[in-house]
Amino acid sequence: MHGLHLTADLHDCRCEAFWLVDAERVGEQCLQAVHAAGLQPVARLFHSFAAAGPGPSGFTATVLLAESHLCLHTWPELGAVTLDVYVCNFGADHSAKAEALMETLVALFQPGHVERHALRRGQKAGSPATVPAA
Amino acid sequence: MHGLHLTADLHDCRCEAFWLVDAERVGEQCLQAVHAAGLQPVARLFHSFAAAGPGPSGFTATVLLAESHLCLHTWPELGAVTLDVYVCNFGADHSAKAEALMETLVALFQPGHVERHALRRGQKAGSPATVPAA
Repeated sequence: MHGLHLTADLHDCRCEAFWLVDAERVGEQCLQAVHAAGLQPVARLFHSFAAAGPGPSGFTATVLLAESHLCLHTWPELGAVTLDVYVCNFGADHSAKAEALMETLVALFQPGHVERHALRRGQKAGSPATVPAA
Repeated sequence: MHGLHLTADLHDCRCEAFWLVDAERVGEQCLQAVHAAGLQPVARLFHSFAAAGPGPSGFTATVLLAESHLCLHTWPELGAVTLDVYVCNFGADHSAKAEALMETLVALFQPGHVERHALRRGQKAGSPATVPAA
């Protein structure tokens, strides 16, 4: 269950407007990016929100991976997007693939500003990084 | 898009075995917990993994929320679960609801050890916490 969870919060997105409102089109791009990164999609769910006012409304796109998940939320009224790419390292270290996928997704939206975080998951605090020989 | 993203990585889960393998049953519990916390589910996706060996295999459950999402991955062979609860604070501060939901989900699995993190999302670094008067 050890893994890497990357987040990126995108501000001032300068992409064409449809990238922030068209769940199906962006979802398909997410799937292509997952394949290109060498990760394995197993299920997907795209949800468009009903407009609450006169402007466009956002969507959520999630792709479940054999290696964990990606999730994307858009706020077209703010020109903003949040991205999560989480991979567990079961069988192999997928960290580089997660980073490549995140870079592809960030680039879609052409953000003026990005806040990034990376969290190592599944490791008990105080656990030794390596198990000493008996 | 400002919000709170809570993570919890659960080790040494002492719950009954079905909690780590039955995606539909746990997914229904997730939905009930979302409602009980006062959050609004808009879509759901549960995926059970095929067994790779003789032991039980895990699942992923995600519930998309009007306020963002929750996601849960299980590793029955390790007695482990990872949980994400992410709420944006559009219209109101949903942080207390996110914390209540996370507590309910953690309790389902009776973990012996939990690693928790909380990430404030969507705020530009260097942005003032309050806007000064003109």
